[in-house]
Amino acid sequence: MKINALVAHDANAPLASAPITLRSVQHQDVKIEVLYCGVCHSDLHMARNEWAVSRYPLVPGHEIVGKVVEVGAGVTRFSTGQIVGVGVMVDSCRECNFCQAQEEQYCEQDFTATYNGIDRYTGQSTWGGYAQNVIVDQDFVISVPDNLPLAGVAPLLCAGVTVWSPLRHFTVKAGDRVGVVGLGGLGHMAVKLASAMGAEVTLFTTSPQKGADAYRLGAKQVVVSTDSEQMAACHASQDIIIDCVAAAHDLDPYLAALKTNGRLVLVGIPETSHPSPQITPMVFRRLSISGSSIGSIKETQEMLDFCGQHSITSDIELLPGEEIENAFRRMLKGDVKYRFVIDMHATHW
Amino acid sequence: MKINALVAHDANAPLASAPITLRSVQHQDVKIEVLYCGVCHSDLHMARNEWAVSRYPLVPGHEIVGKVVEVGAGVTRFSTGQIVGVGVMVDSCRECNFCQAQEEQYCEQDFTATYNGIDRYTGQSTWGGYAQNVIVDQDFVISVPDNLPLAGVAPLLCAGVTVWSPLRHFTVKAGDRVGVVGLGGLGHMAVKLASAMGAEVTLFTTSPQKGADAYRLGAKQVVVSTDSEQMAACHASQDIIIDCVAAAHDLDPYLAALKTNGRLVLVGIPETSHPSPQITPMVFRRLSISGSSIGSIKETQEMLDFCGQHSITSDIELLPGEEIENAFRRMLKGDVKYRFVIDMHATHW
Repeated sequence: MKINALVAHDANAPLASAPITLRSVQHQDVKIEVLYCGVCHSDLHMARNEWAVSRYPLVPGHEIVGKVVEVGAGVTRFSTGQIVGVGVMVDSCRECNFCQAQEEQYCEQDFTATYNGIDRYTGQSTWGGYAQNVIVDQDFVISVPDNLPLAGVAPLLCAGVTVWSPLRHFTVKAGDRVGVVGLGGLGHMAVKLASAMGAEVTLFTTSPQKGADAYRLGAKQVVVSTDSEQMAACHASQDIIIDCVAAAHDLDPYLAALKTNGRLVLVGIPETSHPSPQITPMVFRRLSISGSSIGSIKETQEMLDFCGQHSITSDIELLPGEEIENAFRRMLKGDVKYRFVIDMHATHW
Repeated sequence: MKINALVAHDANAPLASAPITLRSVQHQDVKIEVLYCGVCHSDLHMARNEWAVSRYPLVPGHEIVGKVVEVGAGVTRFSTGQIVGVGVMVDSCRECNFCQAQEEQYCEQDFTATYNGIDRYTGQSTWGGYAQNVIVDQDFVISVPDNLPLAGVAPLLCAGVTVWSPLRHFTVKAGDRVGVVGLGGLGHMAVKLASAMGAEVTLFTTSPQKGADAYRLGAKQVVVSTDSEQMAACHASQDIIIDCVAAAHDLDPYLAALKTNGRLVLVGIPETSHPSPQITPMVFRRLSISGSSIGSIKETQEMLDFCGQHSITSDIELLPGEEIENAFRRMLKGDVKYRFVIDMHATHW
């Protein structure tokens, strides 16, 4: 079926409204009217082909909130009118050890990305949420709690679960000291989620002016990471640090801030390598550096349920689809608090 | 009391027999007649002041096996004639969280090193096991199983427990795929111990000629790490890799060899940094890089008991104390299978 979407036709052209064709609704499929879609930094990378993997035409968007408007005959978990979410994945092999263990994000055959992936039914490109509709297998659709403002839910589907997953996988609990590096889209969610878990959150930032916001979001402490005295004062103080900065940066100050047995979790991938971390403190204090990639469908549902219980959403700036290029420009300057979200109903197709 | 020891008088002088004065036997002390002492690479670094922390005169040696010849009035766990071991630590603060948790190797006040440490009783330097006797608090003395050849036990006290600790802490179990990088003093113990735990051990080595030995020691597979085809063939195959190479080297091939959720454990500290590891596979496959430092007294005892049950000792070359400088020279060329051990009774003081 034909719908309208914000389409990148090549790496240099601005996104523009254009018709695209979705697959027909399959037995297990849920057809969703997209209400809101968050703007993730990877959308910009992909629209511009900065990772050299983009296939055009391309429709970005993997932080999707919408309303179910049609379901396939085999759909048991959703019905028309329900509010649902879709994140970074829309399918996976379903057979490997990781899929069987409900960790589809580590699928050995690679999960199907919500956009610029290869649809396992049709063999064609997948289309993202900068669109009037998406059609997704029910197993990759998330229920949205009914008490949350929906525009602020959208970024939870990627930014939220990307920090939720390591917080849960590495078993953060009430009273733990959790460091968060960087107060952007991911970092501000890490501050909110870890605080709501009962952790004592320390924000590490290069921007002293972000301090007030960090406290508002739940941080107990703000450390200016370029201030060596402040960094020295928090030596060996953190159980875990979630490092949300994708740009290459020195990891050693964060290793120093970890307690013995502490863990530095990297959720961003730098374009050029981080400076090589010192091994001495890692050995003498049994420190770990770990990576973590998005989160599973199960974790996404748990995170959304948790957000419903704790009334947590992302701080956002809402905009119509035709403002997307302006949003990309402001994102490049770090000028967003803390996530742009496209309002599909305000968009002129 | 005065005894003889192999003493480094400065960074340039060869070790030579000379008298030293031990503290008198305290209430909880065990006086040990040293029978054998392993030669750890750090002994060479310390004798030569290569870490710039040596204080002279200095007596190396922290892989000590000996016989109890005297006990203090408060000693309950040992009696005269018993065979015991002493490793890298002879004391710690005993009060911090780590000491209370029986992880003295991570003591917040720093453990007292067996040599070149500061004796918490006397405030003087501690003296190591290249000596006729050592005097150690009973809490830092290990019981040696009575079925093992004692010279081969000595290296277990440092090299053995340094690989045992991460194998246990990171919960290696039967059937796990365990990689070991480097077949030296530590690596050959990692192969033996992990194999005896029931793990399937893969040795990664730059020296194809070490293959036969690795199989003899228990490895199921030998991979020449400089052979990119062999490395590619073991992509994503290992649950954990214990990297025993202290020299700076590329970690990326070992990250590639880990399964999703896998862990690369570094037990050596390079003089110059390792090349910076790639973050992409760490994120996409939730890999970890962890450090690990020696092992606790409790782990050392468990390891020795395990070695008793499985008849495991280190492969060694025995030599009299006067050959120590020759041993150092051969160690620098990697010419030892796999640990030199000084025979104190064969030594002319």
